[in-house]
Amino acid sequence: MKLPTLKDIQQAHKNIDTYINHTPIQVSGMLNKMFNTSLFFKCENFQKVGAFKYRGATNAVLNLTETERKNGVATHSSGNHAQALALSAKMQGIKAHIVMPSNSPKVKSNAVKYYGAEITFCEPTLEARANTLNNIVNKTNAKVIHPYENFNVICGQGTAVLELINGIEHLDIIITPVGGGGLLSGTAVAAKEINPDIIIYGAEPEGADDAYRSFHSNKLIPSINPNTFCDGLLTSLGEINYTIIKKYVNEILTVSDEEIITAMKLIWERMKIIVEPSSATVLASVIKYNSLFKNKKVGLILSGGNVDLDNLPW
Amino acid sequence: MKLPTLKDIQQAHKNIDTYINHTPIQVSGMLNKMFNTSLFFKCENFQKVGAFKYRGATNAVLNLTETERKNGVATHSSGNHAQALALSAKMQGIKAHIVMPSNSPKVKSNAVKYYGAEITFCEPTLEARANTLNNIVNKTNAKVIHPYENFNVICGQGTAVLELINGIEHLDIIITPVGGGGLLSGTAVAAKEINPDIIIYGAEPEGADDAYRSFHSNKLIPSINPNTFCDGLLTSLGEINYTIIKKYVNEILTVSDEEIITAMKLIWERMKIIVEPSSATVLASVIKYNSLFKNKKVGLILSGGNVDLDNLPW
Repeated sequence: MKLPTLKDIQQAHKNIDTYINHTPIQVSGMLNKMFNTSLFFKCENFQKVGAFKYRGATNAVLNLTETERKNGVATHSSGNHAQALALSAKMQGIKAHIVMPSNSPKVKSNAVKYYGAEITFCEPTLEARANTLNNIVNKTNAKVIHPYENFNVICGQGTAVLELINGIEHLDIIITPVGGGGLLSGTAVAAKEINPDIIIYGAEPEGADDAYRSFHSNKLIPSINPNTFCDGLLTSLGEINYTIIKKYVNEILTVSDEEIITAMKLIWERMKIIVEPSSATVLASVIKYNSLFKNKKVGLILSGGNVDLDNLPW
Repeated sequence: MKLPTLKDIQQAHKNIDTYINHTPIQVSGMLNKMFNTSLFFKCENFQKVGAFKYRGATNAVLNLTETERKNGVATHSSGNHAQALALSAKMQGIKAHIVMPSNSPKVKSNAVKYYGAEITFCEPTLEARANTLNNIVNKTNAKVIHPYENFNVICGQGTAVLELINGIEHLDIIITPVGGGGLLSGTAVAAKEINPDIIIYGAEPEGADDAYRSFHSNKLIPSINPNTFCDGLLTSLGEINYTIIKKYVNEILTVSDEEIITAMKLIWERMKIIVEPSSATVLASVIKYNSLFKNKKVGLILSGGNVDLDNLPW
């Protein structure tokens, strides 16, 4: 697969510009003081559908051919990508088929339904998800939009950091969560091609540290039985994402669920914004590996804010 | 007591301008669609100390005479006013004495301590609070800054709506929570003197509806045994605030705790921001009395975001 370049990501930003929220960048004097650093949070929890995923899905949908548009798009996802693709498709008047595991939280399937997508429920196994999606594609010829192993999706996810760098000068470090790797790899390409001296970190839960292990072993190691309450980071790193991350990322920092919960609560309490567990990995990393961040200007991408308020981790 | 005018509030805004956060105004397309209206939320949950109270406290502190500055300020409060006065005093290098009931949440007394104020704990009765405050004032000559029955405090609270009106043209309605009445009365003076046609509502919990009852009975009726989980709205309406509200406010809308919880959760889920129960009274009113708000441009003041995350109402 072709690797994205800064130019591709800038083009993606032009494509999606009128559809996305240009999310705010927030600071907290209190957190800066607590951790001796200068943190700039790019708030993708305020993105449409509550997560950065809307950027990539929109760019993918906007890059469909005429024939592909007619046949619609499809994916399997229990999370933010499902909502993102559903809304992106709806905005373009395109049909979306979403395969969701039967144990998906009602609030998520309702959101997908609200955006007008057609949901097919299946057994909650990876195999059933893949098979069900296959059947739908055979029937409809819908174009499968993978949540992160997709050129246009990666380019879309890379657009958030363009806005961050455009808003804040002279950042020393940028850190994003890493699950499938779409956000981290898109961010890394854009940021490093703008400024090769910038340091890029990925933040990953210890219980799903396939990116960390892959990064340090020179081969892609899939995640087996990941165990973390960061529901957005359970997926295995994608192949193209791995290639980009090896090339551009300086380090993967791992943090425990306990450290993530502490950071998540700090963000809620101090910044008064709702972020999902995945988002909190970045602040957890700043706290745990504090010496890396001291007296630096740090851009952090908060990936999303979709949380089950009836089931908080504290 | 002299009643504040728009001019006084504009002067207050000049006074506090460099100390406060000019908080953002947020919109939610989803909420607008759900309730057939156009809502503009002034996010005082992003204000310093997490609440609008910082505006009034800062204006009060900035209006002290030289002698008063030397003796310091004092108040009794278990809530946002305590933190607001503590930080306002600290910013001006002035001593603050805060009387807090012994059952105050640790997180609140810690915050007050963090801002450098001297805390005196007392029995959790109104009488003990007043007596303890009296003793401190007798000893120190500190100037008592009442949380809402104070000219400069009211002027300070009225500054939020200046920013709201400055940011959003042609608002039809403005709605704020009402407890002691500082926010509502400051808002009403400023907004009505700018535009006499604007409609001003107060939003109040049914279980602490002294403003509603006072408004409709032509005399100030104190709150006796208020019962609501809106900890910021348990206080009785102040006298000067009552006078202003009678003059300028169009109606007090009451909502049940259940309706407030629903609205609070909607704000958290849809807007991804943390607001305290008191703040949610305004959206609860828009939902309950929907016909008043249909197809109108409505400014809502979200009063604050200080919530005990370990003790949520759902």
